[in-house]
Amino acid sequence: MKKDDNCVFCKIIAGEIPCVKVYQDDNSLAFMDIGPVSQGHVLLICKEHFLTLDEMPAEMAAKTCAALPMIVGAVKNATGCSGVNVLQNNGAIAGQAVPHVHFHIIPRYGVAGEFRFDWPAGKYETGKMQALADKIICCLPKK
Amino acid sequence: MKKDDNCVFCKIIAGEIPCVKVYQDDNSLAFMDIGPVSQGHVLLICKEHFLTLDEMPAEMAAKTCAALPMIVGAVKNATGCSGVNVLQNNGAIAGQAVPHVHFHIIPRYGVAGEFRFDWPAGKYETGKMQALADKIICCLPKK
Repeated sequence: MKKDDNCVFCKIIAGEIPCVKVYQDDNSLAFMDIGPVSQGHVLLICKEHFLTLDEMPAEMAAKTCAALPMIVGAVKNATGCSGVNVLQNNGAIAGQAVPHVHFHIIPRYGVAGEFRFDWPAGKYETGKMQALADKIICCLPKK
Repeated sequence: MKKDDNCVFCKIIAGEIPCVKVYQDDNSLAFMDIGPVSQGHVLLICKEHFLTLDEMPAEMAAKTCAALPMIVGAVKNATGCSGVNVLQNNGAIAGQAVPHVHFHIIPRYGVAGEFRFDWPAGKYETGKMQALADKIICCLPKK
């Protein structure tokens, strides 16, 4: 199992840094975020070290995300929140603060000062959407 | 397979509404968001209808998320973006616009006007984090 000795999440997994755990299995660990963007903010990680989601084997992403429904459900029921955002950031520009793939489970209460995002929905110029899709398809593994 | 005749994503899956597809397998479909919050914004959905992630069986969340690494990688390589946010919203308050579980794959370029979020990291009062964790643990399925 890959581990990075300088990674704070790898240290948490190894028990070298404490956490307030809510769930674990062979593959995954979920614990409270110590800098919550809303009350009940939980982090879900894979126990193996991967920097970004695209570096992760499909099977490990699947195993990690298998825990999402029950954690989202438990956070909803425990906090009584009105909604939940699941957010996974890849790269500093996208807000990734720890270089070990993690899923934020963020309860939403609709109160001032909680996590929120802008949604600047735009449009594509004619032909641009298909052209971008064609490029993305070219970059997918061939079946 | 559960389907909702009024759901726009179920209609896309059934071929009743067109989409610009980038990927599909037995379980999942990925296509271009027609209201992109950045260039190359892709949606990944499960072909079965579930309103929110907590309603989804673990196995289907796993199958759907198994496609995330390759789609994130392909979007990165195709667009040349500097980072990617994966966002899945549950409930209107959390920004869920279509009532069928979907994962947004959002390229980030670090340019003005693209998708961004606030990150109002806070702290817990003494004892509050553990108390919330205990509540969440109580709401998880018993092993």
